[in-house]
Amino acid sequence: MPKDTKAPLAELLRVPEGERVDLASFDARATPAGPADKAAGLEATARMGERLADLQERLYAASTGGDRRRVLLVLQGMDTSGKGGTVKHVIGLFNPSGCRIKAFKTPTPEEQNHPFLWRIMKALPQPGEIGIFDRSHYEDVLIARVRELVPRSQLGRRYGQINRFEKSLAHDGVTVIKCFLHISAEEQRERLLERLDRPDKHWKFNPGDIDERALWPAYQEAYEIALERCSTEASPWYVIPSDRKWYRNWAISKLLLEHLEAIDPQYPMADFDVAECRKRLVEGV
Amino acid sequence: MPKDTKAPLAELLRVPEGERVDLASFDARATPAGPADKAAGLEATARMGERLADLQERLYAASTGGDRRRVLLVLQGMDTSGKGGTVKHVIGLFNPSGCRIKAFKTPTPEEQNHPFLWRIMKALPQPGEIGIFDRSHYEDVLIARVRELVPRSQLGRRYGQINRFEKSLAHDGVTVIKCFLHISAEEQRERLLERLDRPDKHWKFNPGDIDERALWPAYQEAYEIALERCSTEASPWYVIPSDRKWYRNWAISKLLLEHLEAIDPQYPMADFDVAECRKRLVEGV
Repeated sequence: MPKDTKAPLAELLRVPEGERVDLASFDARATPAGPADKAAGLEATARMGERLADLQERLYAASTGGDRRRVLLVLQGMDTSGKGGTVKHVIGLFNPSGCRIKAFKTPTPEEQNHPFLWRIMKALPQPGEIGIFDRSHYEDVLIARVRELVPRSQLGRRYGQINRFEKSLAHDGVTVIKCFLHISAEEQRERLLERLDRPDKHWKFNPGDIDERALWPAYQEAYEIALERCSTEASPWYVIPSDRKWYRNWAISKLLLEHLEAIDPQYPMADFDVAECRKRLVEGV
Repeated sequence: MPKDTKAPLAELLRVPEGERVDLASFDARATPAGPADKAAGLEATARMGERLADLQERLYAASTGGDRRRVLLVLQGMDTSGKGGTVKHVIGLFNPSGCRIKAFKTPTPEEQNHPFLWRIMKALPQPGEIGIFDRSHYEDVLIARVRELVPRSQLGRRYGQINRFEKSLAHDGVTVIKCFLHISAEEQRERLLERLDRPDKHWKFNPGDIDERALWPAYQEAYEIALERCSTEASPWYVIPSDRKWYRNWAISKLLLEHLEAIDPQYPMADFDVAECRKRLVEGV
């Protein structure tokens, strides 16, 4: 990846369509195009808050005038990679009333009786909203692949189904921003150990996380395949170096900012007689 | 209302059970027990943020250990009273992933075919969450009363239905905090005029708001009746002087803080062998 700080961050972090992905070649501690250090990163992220909230309000306002556009941020990554932290620190910069957050867990029996995209469609953002998926339909080609939850032929069809689904979202005005929070195995060990060391973090720990960790190489491979097959023009994947939390938060905030600026939502024109309303208000009770 | 700054704000602002309510006697510009001025108010509210977010995390963590408790903030008030602003500025202090926000609009045909509490029950917070209702089941005794949307006898039964419903919520661990955002008619006029003066606020304006405003006395009466009949031990109403936005935000933040401190949620104990997990992590791959 060329280090050109003038290029939009999206160009720098996106997975080129159809290209093979080797996650081992991505440094999870890197800070491409990022601020110089943690202090500068925290400040830069906070400074983006006002602009993000302003663009969000415009996006919502535009929807009241018929604009169907909206944003969907998809967060994927291994345990402790910071999906929840991103929601807290990045989505926390927005007005919560315009955010539709959905954390996908193990499918319920009802969800399992439907096609895998069924529960996804029910959770999509409405026009004007910013949707956030903490895990997503990608679990159906990640854990489903690693744990062999479905026959290989069915799994193989899902990549195409996902691409067609995401293309239909793009046509419907949904800007999908898919972020893979890339952490190193060593960083995950540190974060899991910290959860064990602190009683106020025990609730976040599950011994099953260690079993999943043992499948690290299989998961990395499953991610490589998903990133390679499903980073499309309509809906690219971004690899976010996430060993440094401040960089992760800065980078995702910046990606959201770049996409919202590209959408450039506009306040709608009044569809009523402003002068007449003003007169009624001033002269009325 | 006695001005005793040591008394919890909840005691100061709550509507005593069974007491007649005369809204004209409440000064919407008052700042009972509040900070000295706007600057101090903004600072005090921001300072509560960390403590609120900490208590919210504890509440959520406790739910993973089986604690069913949760909070439901109900916001009611005339147009421009600041329901949306409260969500933005007060709920914005929390981690958005633990907040379940629902804005109730005119009932859909499907909702109208169900009892009025049906859509309310579907939107309740889950254990560990903070639910926020921007408008609520109270619309069914407010606009429904003023606009005579249902026969008077049916309307009369709804107050008891609401009280029984809210009592059942309390039994199920839901702390309901009902806030009436009290503004003066003059303040509403100013705020509506501001929306007309600013093109970036036109999207928030609806000429129908002026028609509703003409029914101001009828709405005040409907609120008085609802506050009187439905401020119960299990689920009291609070009157929030809301002509000053900084006071409104401070007061609602403080009410949330007092209630969360009373809940006093605790991190759950680990239900796994911490030492064993630590050993597996250190010795594993």
